[in-house]
Amino acid sequence: MRPEITTFAWVPPFAHGLVRDLRPRWALEEAGIAYDVRTLAPGEAEGEAYRRVQPFGQVPAYRDAEVELFESGAILLHIVRRTPGLAPAGAQEAAATEAWLFAALSTIEPHAMNLVTPELFYPGEPWVEGFRPVAERLLSGRLDGLSRGLRGKDWLTGRFGVADIMMATVLRIVEREAAFAARADLRAYLARCVERPAFARALAAQVETFRANEPAPA
Amino acid sequence: MRPEITTFAWVPPFAHGLVRDLRPRWALEEAGIAYDVRTLAPGEAEGEAYRRVQPFGQVPAYRDAEVELFESGAILLHIVRRTPGLAPAGAQEAAATEAWLFAALSTIEPHAMNLVTPELFYPGEPWVEGFRPVAERLLSGRLDGLSRGLRGKDWLTGRFGVADIMMATVLRIVEREAAFAARADLRAYLARCVERPAFARALAAQVETFRANEPAPA
Repeated sequence: MRPEITTFAWVPPFAHGLVRDLRPRWALEEAGIAYDVRTLAPGEAEGEAYRRVQPFGQVPAYRDAEVELFESGAILLHIVRRTPGLAPAGAQEAAATEAWLFAALSTIEPHAMNLVTPELFYPGEPWVEGFRPVAERLLSGRLDGLSRGLRGKDWLTGRFGVADIMMATVLRIVEREAAFAARADLRAYLARCVERPAFARALAAQVETFRANEPAPA
Repeated sequence: MRPEITTFAWVPPFAHGLVRDLRPRWALEEAGIAYDVRTLAPGEAEGEAYRRVQPFGQVPAYRDAEVELFESGAILLHIVRRTPGLAPAGAQEAAATEAWLFAALSTIEPHAMNLVTPELFYPGEPWVEGFRPVAERLLSGRLDGLSRGLRGKDWLTGRFGVADIMMATVLRIVEREAAFAARADLRAYLARCVERPAFARALAAQVETFRANEPAPA
């Protein structure tokens, strides 16, 4: 079987290009591996059947002839292992790839989410305004670390790889925030990432899925 | 050389047992691998020399004869690979181990941190009180997913491994929160994890490091 990833059949326009199935789509496009998409109808992600595959009801989940798993970070590591052209060259590059993949997800993404999700999901709640500068300061500190890690390099490990796919998809969450947009080095890094043809194909495919399942006007 | 991990020379008592060098300490204890600890003096984590090793100024960083890297998740995956006794049996168990390791760090830990860090680091700020129930609800939803994933199992992948080390250290962040403490299944799971002799040795070693570097009373 071809690899299969899950995503939602539809999400509101603000989330187009941000849903995390973009990560395995991009990696599979870089690897030149054709894949299938299983879309989840409204409510299906919360249902018992899907929760047996993905206990948290999130997307993406992934399966192929060999394994099934979830969490975009784990899926990217799995794709790397079956793709010689994406695989790191040697033990140190593999270690650095995993270090940066985890840094994107664990050290940067939580602060990116804390900066943008309150206004999206809790607009007008009294804590949102006071929390914003705190989230912004914390994210900025982490972006300082990323700038340092990228100093003198085009890519996180010296060569494009899944760590860059993960980091770029995290940075896109805050692309329009001043904390990111004020940093020319990180803007240039993100531009290098998203200029890749595989990114454009992955993004177009995700958006096409959501457009194909647009709900009829009420 | 023996593996070397970094940690802070000292942290305030509330953080004893929670600093993330506990994760590689625990994995190395499970693996029966002796290791060295490099402690960072006050201010050293922010300095240029350490930032060349760990761009974000966090602990732990790790090195051995083969590689150097950072991020506790990446370090655990590296330790697994050099330890036959800890390594997953087969491709599906490896995939599940990585899925749950990322789930601990990326799906649960950010919400655990959002629940406990505001009162620790921003006490009295006006947004803290309003944010708490939101953070609690989000964490509870993620703990539902963990309960579902653990149903009928003692360990996340059916056999104790580094995914459990990561998950247990994440759950310990919220051990005294009602959102966690009200769940008998998760309390029992965490108890199984921390009953392991390797956990006790790792915890004692971390606390001993901090006690040995206790600042003199002002």
